[in-house]
Amino acid sequence: MSKNELKRSKSPSKDSNKKQKTGSEKEQFIASFEEIKKVLEQDLDDCRLPANGKEWFKKMFDETVQGGKMNRGLTVASALQSLLKRSLTDKELYEAHVLGWCIEMENVGMVAINDSFIVESAIYKLLKRYFKSHPAYVEFLELFHETTFQTELGQLMDLITAPEGDVDLSRFSIEKHAYIVEYKTAYYSFYLPIALAMRYAGVTDETAYNQAKKVLLALGEYFQVQDDYLDCYGLPEVIGKIGTDIEDNKCGWLIVQALSLANEEQREILDKNYGQKDPAKVALVKQVYKDLDIEGVYNKYEEESYERISALIKEIDDSLIPQDMFTKFMNR
Amino acid sequence: MSKNELKRSKSPSKDSNKKQKTGSEKEQFIASFEEIKKVLEQDLDDCRLPANGKEWFKKMFDETVQGGKMNRGLTVASALQSLLKRSLTDKELYEAHVLGWCIEMENVGMVAINDSFIVESAIYKLLKRYFKSHPAYVEFLELFHETTFQTELGQLMDLITAPEGDVDLSRFSIEKHAYIVEYKTAYYSFYLPIALAMRYAGVTDETAYNQAKKVLLALGEYFQVQDDYLDCYGLPEVIGKIGTDIEDNKCGWLIVQALSLANEEQREILDKNYGQKDPAKVALVKQVYKDLDIEGVYNKYEEESYERISALIKEIDDSLIPQDMFTKFMNR
Repeated sequence: MSKNELKRSKSPSKDSNKKQKTGSEKEQFIASFEEIKKVLEQDLDDCRLPANGKEWFKKMFDETVQGGKMNRGLTVASALQSLLKRSLTDKELYEAHVLGWCIEMENVGMVAINDSFIVESAIYKLLKRYFKSHPAYVEFLELFHETTFQTELGQLMDLITAPEGDVDLSRFSIEKHAYIVEYKTAYYSFYLPIALAMRYAGVTDETAYNQAKKVLLALGEYFQVQDDYLDCYGLPEVIGKIGTDIEDNKCGWLIVQALSLANEEQREILDKNYGQKDPAKVALVKQVYKDLDIEGVYNKYEEESYERISALIKEIDDSLIPQDMFTKFMNR
Repeated sequence: MSKNELKRSKSPSKDSNKKQKTGSEKEQFIASFEEIKKVLEQDLDDCRLPANGKEWFKKMFDETVQGGKMNRGLTVASALQSLLKRSLTDKELYEAHVLGWCIEMENVGMVAINDSFIVESAIYKLLKRYFKSHPAYVEFLELFHETTFQTELGQLMDLITAPEGDVDLSRFSIEKHAYIVEYKTAYYSFYLPIALAMRYAGVTDETAYNQAKKVLLALGEYFQVQDDYLDCYGLPEVIGKIGTDIEDNKCGWLIVQALSLANEEQREILDKNYGQKDPAKVALVKQVYKDLDIEGVYNKYEEESYERISALIKEIDDSLIPQDMFTKFMNR
């Protein structure tokens, strides 16, 4: 609470005070937006959001919240003046603007969700425009429908298995992890692009799609597991971020392996320390990973997976689809 | 279909062909994005989307779809080349890129919806930061919670009463219209800003909130009805857009009034012609409005509403809240 107090007394800065006194009602309101963004950026820093996430937030926040007539937002300060029957102090004016911006922010939800619907509709507009008379038109449509549904199911399982701030490792398992990876990522990122190209090229034999799917879902898992591994053990300067899967209660490959190997004592340490922002707790989780040699388990998995996928690729009927399409994709 | 064919043969333009031959795989893919945007803009034109809506779309589309590694999108062309075992023609390359961009677009949904959640969380971050020790902190929180819920309910009723492309005027009524206006717009745009200012100013008497709510919800309805009226009868150069409520199957004030007054024959005309993009059908709906003198009904409503709201304002206990706060707001 004292931290909040401190931050309150710092805002608004001297600079924005001056602006507020000279600009029009609306100019003052817009000026307070910069101050408010700075405050929210502090919150993002507290959550250790990586730099690219912060950039996304700032841009998105500018574009979705600002603009329009801002009548609702402006009304708070104006009404407050009526109520107090006097000019507002700088603090009152700024705080009325904070409430005003909160009202402007209320509207973003519907707009953003609607944007996502519009973009989804645009997919089908494009498919119709370019492929209406393509022999695979219906297959293109069905691939997008199916993948959308699969990705939504994966997202659903991820959300109910590992909700942020509600840690319960009994919900995690190797099977759940595999399901989430397959449905949330592998169909969309690995199967869909290749399946579309196959339909375009006129491949109709279902055997070819089954063989491709087998390879591509395995490949999707392989890359996601690598991703999970690097989140914990990759060098930040190489992977471009500081991993936070442990803090974020992610149902990742490392934790489900650890859970499957942990004895009672280790399980208790994981239960007590996973999914929390405290660096000391993160260190305890990593110590259990070390004691269980999860890195060794990963190296074994990686080697075996690579062998298994290479074997699957060799099994592909090269008269139906070329094996080198998969090796190319694997090396991307 | 012949129109589609025509458009297909026009794309990609000569210019982008040249680019595709010279740039890297990724540069070619990005170049095709501009072509695709042009195509989608034609679709927006077909739906007579006003200029500011088009600007929004283009900006949103750039910002949500582009960016990232685009591996999924790039894979289609690369896989197609493997499948055909030869270089792609310009047409094939472009069409593979269309499919690739459709894959990139798949991801937008989750991102946009998540953005809207982040902005909503940011409201509560700001309220905590600035008002944690304000006597009205809990009331601020509750006002935002309540208004969010009310707006969602209004949105729900709007969506199930007047879904686009599913016209059924038996779902419309004066009462439904009033509910949608009150819940979707009036609480959020009219009551919330004033109620926040009252809480800030330390007004605690519930009578004051009830009096204010009565005025502000009436005011919200008054402005929304005016909006509905102008959509049909306002000059485009004054209202800044060409109204399309009739085409869009909107449950607006004019149609619910018309339905309550129509005889059997007029009702049939409305049923057959409302909610469709055909200008001839729109003209038939407007003729029924004219025969029923909906403009006259509106003028009477407007006059009576103004009187009623002015009377409500005069009833306000000026020792609790100043009447001029409402007259100011009304004249904004």
